[in-house]
Amino acid sequence: MDESDFTLAHTRVAIIGLGLMGGSLALALQEQCAEIVGVDSNPETMAFALKHSIIDRAADFDSALDCDLLILAAPVRAILAQLDALARTSFLLPPASFILDLGSTKSQITSAMEKLPAGFDPLGGHPMCGKEVSGIENAEADLFRDKTFVLTPLARTSPQALKLAHELIEVIDARPLILPAERHDALAATCSHLPYLVATALMRAAQTVDDDQRWTLAASGFRDTSRLAASDVTMMSDILLTNRAAILDSLSRYRAELDSLIQLIDSADPEALRVALEPAQAHRAQLFQ
Amino acid sequence: MDESDFTLAHTRVAIIGLGLMGGSLALALQEQCAEIVGVDSNPETMAFALKHSIIDRAADFDSALDCDLLILAAPVRAILAQLDALARTSFLLPPASFILDLGSTKSQITSAMEKLPAGFDPLGGHPMCGKEVSGIENAEADLFRDKTFVLTPLARTSPQALKLAHELIEVIDARPLILPAERHDALAATCSHLPYLVATALMRAAQTVDDDQRWTLAASGFRDTSRLAASDVTMMSDILLTNRAAILDSLSRYRAELDSLIQLIDSADPEALRVALEPAQAHRAQLFQ
Repeated sequence: MDESDFTLAHTRVAIIGLGLMGGSLALALQEQCAEIVGVDSNPETMAFALKHSIIDRAADFDSALDCDLLILAAPVRAILAQLDALARTSFLLPPASFILDLGSTKSQITSAMEKLPAGFDPLGGHPMCGKEVSGIENAEADLFRDKTFVLTPLARTSPQALKLAHELIEVIDARPLILPAERHDALAATCSHLPYLVATALMRAAQTVDDDQRWTLAASGFRDTSRLAASDVTMMSDILLTNRAAILDSLSRYRAELDSLIQLIDSADPEALRVALEPAQAHRAQLFQ
Repeated sequence: MDESDFTLAHTRVAIIGLGLMGGSLALALQEQCAEIVGVDSNPETMAFALKHSIIDRAADFDSALDCDLLILAAPVRAILAQLDALARTSFLLPPASFILDLGSTKSQITSAMEKLPAGFDPLGGHPMCGKEVSGIENAEADLFRDKTFVLTPLARTSPQALKLAHELIEVIDARPLILPAERHDALAATCSHLPYLVATALMRAAQTVDDDQRWTLAASGFRDTSRLAASDVTMMSDILLTNRAAILDSLSRYRAELDSLIQLIDSADPEALRVALEPAQAHRAQLFQ
């Protein structure tokens, strides 16, 4: 492509991994780029994507490399394997230039991107959205609307790649936020990975209760607090395995808060309880308005 | 009243405490009983209830006692104080016969009900519903629809009181569930009180993060997992103070699950992680369908 052609409308996009994220991105990019090529290891997913015109064309990984922009949308450890494969392949002329990923953790992915042959122009990305259900059948075009889309550029990322990513973020109605990969991972550990673990521990604790009415009394409070426990296990274990240090740090902060609440309840001091609960109450009440 | 008159349509109902629960019950009972009398210590709440015709008449606690059914809808420790006041008052003829409460914990309330003069006919109750916002301005008539409404009868509770409570539960479209008070409290500790503490500890842990972007990355997962932290502090501290043993027990189960997840992440064993996460995922995915 000529440099003046680096616009989304002239870009042939390959989306590798047609799950909730990849499928939703394909839907959000309809009519916005030259072609949307889909790649997924599951033939049923590919058939679904073609049947519902979510992608223009199905391809395998190797033949998708002739697209202008490769979007890696699989779980984190699958993205790492794909980047590793690309780094080991010898290209006379690299067939795909821009690479953007949607992986939930960024440090290991941007490190792997550093090892790509010079012809590639990689950029880390993470749209801060999702659902507790997974798969292309739950994909929706407005999943990204008004959501933060983090970009973690590398030293080698070109201005053209950043410009194209910003254009993509604009057409899907998301909000770009540029962060260093490590800072993204520390923040995501608290805002996203910790809530999943909190929900899973709650679900597991409730499962240990030996009373056949234990789910009858579970109302909207239990429903919402435990919702993330239903998240896709492969996606979540890949996150836990690739952001361990930051997650263990946020778990340690959380455990300290839990222990201080346990002590307060044990002490049964109404005034001390109120002083501990009110700041969290006041902050949370105005947080998502 | 003659015994044949023990129907909701002939009952003058006094609701003591016009918060989210009391206000919603008043709305749900419109046209279903002879009169709805409202009692609240906050004059603005009373004015709001009258202005919006949520109650037929405003009264103070003492003059509300001539109603047929007294519904105690304040936070738990306020209900305990009201029951204590009723127990200390000498009535020649007890003016109110049926007493139903909506308190979130039941053991201490039913114990206090046991001490009421013989003329009273008390029954413990707890509708398993709510919102993270409080106050009569957030009341809604269908708050109870399809929700479990626990009844914790005392040995002294009459068949007429139980019949009237069942009729009330039917007209507000809730589902009755009779449980011993202690069993309710153990279940509520895990299904309701623990989720609140889990959400509050999460909010407090996030507050300790020193990064000005920490709320930008908080998406729907953090929003839902932390939602209960915005619950009314008086209501929640009353719960924590009156269900301490059961709550400490469920916190100890939860902490054990959290610790086992921390160990698993620390060990970085993909297969062990999957085995730990999958049962909670599978169970939660089918729980609220």
